[in-house]
Amino acid sequence: MNQPALGPVVVIGAGLLGASVGAALTDFGERVQLRDRIVSHARVAATLGAGSLAPIPEGEVNLVVVAVPPTALASVVAEALLEYPSAVVTDVGSVKGTVLRQLEEHFGDVNLARYVGCHPMAGSHLSGPVTARPDLFVDRTWAITPHRATAERAMETVRRLGEACGGRVVILDPDDHDAAVARVSHLPHLMSVLMADHLLDVPAEHLGLAGQGVRDVTRIAGSDPVLWEQIITTNARALRPELEGVRARLEQVIDALDNPSSDRVRSVLEGARAGTRRIPGKHGTPLVDYAHVVVEIPDTPGALAKLFADISRAGVNIEDVSIEHDPVRRVGSLSVAVDPARKDELDHLMRDAGWFVA
Amino acid sequence: MNQPALGPVVVIGAGLLGASVGAALTDFGERVQLRDRIVSHARVAATLGAGSLAPIPEGEVNLVVVAVPPTALASVVAEALLEYPSAVVTDVGSVKGTVLRQLEEHFGDVNLARYVGCHPMAGSHLSGPVTARPDLFVDRTWAITPHRATAERAMETVRRLGEACGGRVVILDPDDHDAAVARVSHLPHLMSVLMADHLLDVPAEHLGLAGQGVRDVTRIAGSDPVLWEQIITTNARALRPELEGVRARLEQVIDALDNPSSDRVRSVLEGARAGTRRIPGKHGTPLVDYAHVVVEIPDTPGALAKLFADISRAGVNIEDVSIEHDPVRRVGSLSVAVDPARKDELDHLMRDAGWFVA
Repeated sequence: MNQPALGPVVVIGAGLLGASVGAALTDFGERVQLRDRIVSHARVAATLGAGSLAPIPEGEVNLVVVAVPPTALASVVAEALLEYPSAVVTDVGSVKGTVLRQLEEHFGDVNLARYVGCHPMAGSHLSGPVTARPDLFVDRTWAITPHRATAERAMETVRRLGEACGGRVVILDPDDHDAAVARVSHLPHLMSVLMADHLLDVPAEHLGLAGQGVRDVTRIAGSDPVLWEQIITTNARALRPELEGVRARLEQVIDALDNPSSDRVRSVLEGARAGTRRIPGKHGTPLVDYAHVVVEIPDTPGALAKLFADISRAGVNIEDVSIEHDPVRRVGSLSVAVDPARKDELDHLMRDAGWFVA
Repeated sequence: MNQPALGPVVVIGAGLLGASVGAALTDFGERVQLRDRIVSHARVAATLGAGSLAPIPEGEVNLVVVAVPPTALASVVAEALLEYPSAVVTDVGSVKGTVLRQLEEHFGDVNLARYVGCHPMAGSHLSGPVTARPDLFVDRTWAITPHRATAERAMETVRRLGEACGGRVVILDPDDHDAAVARVSHLPHLMSVLMADHLLDVPAEHLGLAGQGVRDVTRIAGSDPVLWEQIITTNARALRPELEGVRARLEQVIDALDNPSSDRVRSVLEGARAGTRRIPGKHGTPLVDYAHVVVEIPDTPGALAKLFADISRAGVNIEDVSIEHDPVRRVGSLSVAVDPARKDELDHLMRDAGWFVA
């Protein structure tokens, strides 16, 4: 075992993220000390299994994880580097380049070799230690953002932290990270917020018609406004061009409403559907190209219900279905999208069951 | 049984909504004829149990349900009123006032007494008859939008249609309906679309950091662009002021990013959280005011995990948890929100189990 030590670990800030890191590391067998400005938070986290309030002597601490709100990050990281002069220090904040610049500009006397930031891409619209879970980070992206002065030991220790918590480690430049989260996290958050804020002016009887769509769009707008104000203002530099891009497109949509012959609305809707398909599947896997089993549409009631039952009994998932129409023969066929690995088998099974397969 | 007859019914347009209406009415015991410009669609719907392609003689038809795309609604409704001169005619389109105006302006010779529009608030990001389900409308709002000329028989027949499909019938003025869906359905759709369209310009490696938030916000943007272009342009009149309101608030947020001392971002975030809480719970029930069981935070590892297990074993749902801090006594307590009807019982149970309950 040539692996460098991971713990003992001090976690500063016992909210959802800090307490979850503490719980994951405790489960991993590491000794964890929990600190929080509000002692009740640390105590709740401790009684939920995220570590102990008992101080670890400064010289024994190998890693300090700073999990405080965004506006406090730089100063708490700087203090931790001074207070634990031999420990690696990281933070789990959601903005990285701005915090690094604050450290460089306002704490120029602190050597940043032992510091490297990270960002576990897990969270919840809940907050506080009560909602902490040791498996919060399992299979989630765990971004690490080394800077020029980061020492190899710091990098390796924080990489082991991410792996111990079950995350999928990704290395990114700090400013590149901030641009990425502005686009895939902070902008979506603000779009959700603008929609939800607008609901304040909607009469109650109109809200009675709300369906699943508006609930999905506004779900994350229910998150902690104090935390999100800090995230958004801390990442304002990366966020502004994204918001300006959306504003320009919104202008075009409003103008297009006055001009029915414009194809602007259609092109935005088509772009949007293509945009949703660019989001990678779970665990970062690309979307699959399905194979198609094409069956002639029979003419008897209940026949297609039986077809779907036959496919499902074969243990094959139906990923998509479309209807193809032959205007000459006046018959139609059904194209069933399935896992390419199962297509040939399914073609045979369907023929054996009496279906007319193209 | 003094109830007026509901069927026989002709459904024109065998997409998701039309085929689901047909399937619900077939299950309800009514005779249903399916018609679609694309005969394969009607045939697929029929073989899935949504009715039959066999024509019902015009004089026997009691109700015609028009379920065609928004831009075709007015003309198909007018044709149906002429083709079935003794039937009640309804449509299930998602825009009502505009369609009524089109009928009044372009089909002035058609008597609209037998027509009343409705809007079952159910749908899917899927489309086409293959995804149709007889239970699509169960417990969903089914808006009916009578106009000045609507006859009592038309109103009662369409009310029975909504009830036969399992919907919760709500009566609305047509223009009021359009304002409501602009606010709670079409605007959320466009916000989702603007976000998803923006993803086209995001580098693939940045999309790798996408979490659940952006997936939720953009889910409905994956819907059929052809259908939604029609919905949006048909309801442009009601939608424009909503979009302009969002644009104004977006301007304020962009300006506030340059001005860290502004409390604009915070106030929008707080407004948004309040906005999400205005959306009624499932089935239109108001949000509950919970009762709070307050327990002193113990000092032993695993204690709170046991507390939550004790509460759940008592069969009580934990709706929310917050930490209250007493800076003088330096102890904290946990406030657990539960169903008010269970509070006293739970207080006793917790005391009996050895917890210090306030």
